[in-house]
Amino acid sequence: MYKSITNVRVRYAETDQMGYVYYGNYLTYYEVARVESLKNLGISYKELESEGIIMPVVENWSKYIAPARYDDLLKIEVSIQKLPGLKIRFHYEIFNESGKLIHIGDTSLVFLNPITGKPTEPPEKILKVLEPYFSDEK
Amino acid sequence: MYKSITNVRVRYAETDQMGYVYYGNYLTYYEVARVESLKNLGISYKELESEGIIMPVVENWSKYIAPARYDDLLKIEVSIQKLPGLKIRFHYEIFNESGKLIHIGDTSLVFLNPITGKPTEPPEKILKVLEPYFSDEK
Amino acid sequence: MYKSITNVRVRYAETDQMGYVYYGNYLTYYEVARVESLKNLGISYKELESEGIIMPVVENWSKYIAPARYDDLLKIEVSIQKLPGLKIRFHYEIFNESGKLIHIGDTSLVFLNPITGKPTEPPEKILKVLEPYFSDEK
Amino acid sequence: MYKSITNVRVRYAETDQMGYVYYGNYLTYYEVARVESLKNLGISYKELESEGIIMPVVENWSKYIAPARYDDLLKIEVSIQKLPGLKIRFHYEIFNESGKLIHIGDTSLVFLNPITGKPTEPPEKILKVLEPYFSDEK
Repeated sequence: MYKSITNVRVRYAETDQMGYVYYGNYLTYYEVARVESLKNLGISYKELESEGIIMPVVENWSKYIAPARYDDLLKIEVSIQKLPGLKIRFHYEIFNESGKLIHIGDTSLVFLNPITGKPTEPPEKILKVLEPYFSDEK
Repeated sequence: MYKSITNVRVRYAETDQMGYVYYGNYLTYYEVARVESLKNLGISYKELESEGIIMPVVENWSKYIAPARYDDLLKIEVSIQKLPGLKIRFHYEIFNESGKLIHIGDTSLVFLNPITGKPTEPPEKILKVLEPYFSDEK
Repeated sequence: MYKSITNVRVRYAETDQMGYVYYGNYLTYYEVARVESLKNLGISYKELESEGIIMPVVENWSKYIAPARYDDLLKIEVSIQKLPGLKIRFHYEIFNESGKLIHIGDTSLVFLNPITGKPTEPPEKILKVLEPYFSDEK
Repeated sequence: MYKSITNVRVRYAETDQMGYVYYGNYLTYYEVARVESLKNLGISYKELESEGIIMPVVENWSKYIAPARYDDLLKIEVSIQKLPGLKIRFHYEIFNESGKLIHIGDTSLVFLNPITGKPTEPPEKILKVLEPYFSDEK
């Protein structure tokens, strides 16, 4: 398993009139967390795109346990629990400043060639940096 | 089962550099569709809030089958498949202009008293308008 | 002068914890209004892009007179007050359901060739449909 | 004059299909920058609200010089150039990683009592921390 931690501070723009973070905005937090988790491995999603791989989301699940609120500094623990095949799946657990688990999520993405529109194998360099985290699972 | 249809046109703001609707923005489309589905039943979510009921989301699931793109006129079929109890669940199927099913989703919300922060029973008026759609299921 | 009217209903996602529409979201309403104003003239912004013209914003000004709130049905009067040259400028006046003017804005955009990154003259077809509205100004 | 610097990394959600940051999203960057500029002075906007002051925006101006793009680390220089009276005005200059000035903006906000809906004088504590930066201007 590979695990990484990202901190995100809630913006006013992200709240709604309930005083909660609007439910759709968590998916942006996920994006920030998973991009940073790849960056920590030396993989830039921006570079992947310029090399001809896009990674659209194919499935997402979110559980809202307690609200996040304006100016909260959220801690997002993001993990990859399985070596990617045609899909890569990220799992998130979000904690507020008191350390309370307020949110859980899962996102699956595919590797896609934007020219052909066809799914492709994950780039070698992603497998290479991830494999050490899964070596004892063989 | 209660079913309702809402049309939403994709805004430029909702696309991302992949040329797709950003995955988090579907949750805003869901909101538009479910608010309109209640309005079609004579229920205003805005009034519910002013009467002391808020409805935060507790769970969401989304399946992205094919991308929605800028200026697409999306047809959202939203349904309530079970009489609400402490939770109410909306199911969505989104079609593009060619009639292709491009997206499926589910959202569960609770009825909450914003003062006490406690879940409450669904308002009588919601049950009253929904019951006729579920009468043959008893 | 060319003038067009668009109605937009405020989404929950667009409110903030003040209970107002978040100030940045008006710029999305402007986009909806100006795209629709062009569509009313037979011009599709989507087609413009596919024909090799993009229209990035170069300047924007917004005056917030009174708040828009959740579920308000806003009436946006959008006008083009001068025949476009290298820039095209849209002016907006937004009214709430009681007919009160709550917001004024102005956006200037350029016509750009996305390949060269250079500004270009406005497409002939835009000038052709707009000219009748400015003929008495010569 | 009081000046402060904030860094913001562009999120994928903030781009549009042009590959630029959508023009409305700069207003969110402004918000992040001005909240942080106040925080650097020991003022929490969140606390201001809980003490009964809200600060809605009354005017905004934005000049888009060159696009910001996905994953760019933007440097926002935010300044307050005049001691606040009934309004407070923030000025922003945004630079990309090559140090190029790509954007300028100005936002004016008022201090408002959310109960009465009336403008009020700026809180004493804001004047107290800002005055030293303007003492030589008397």
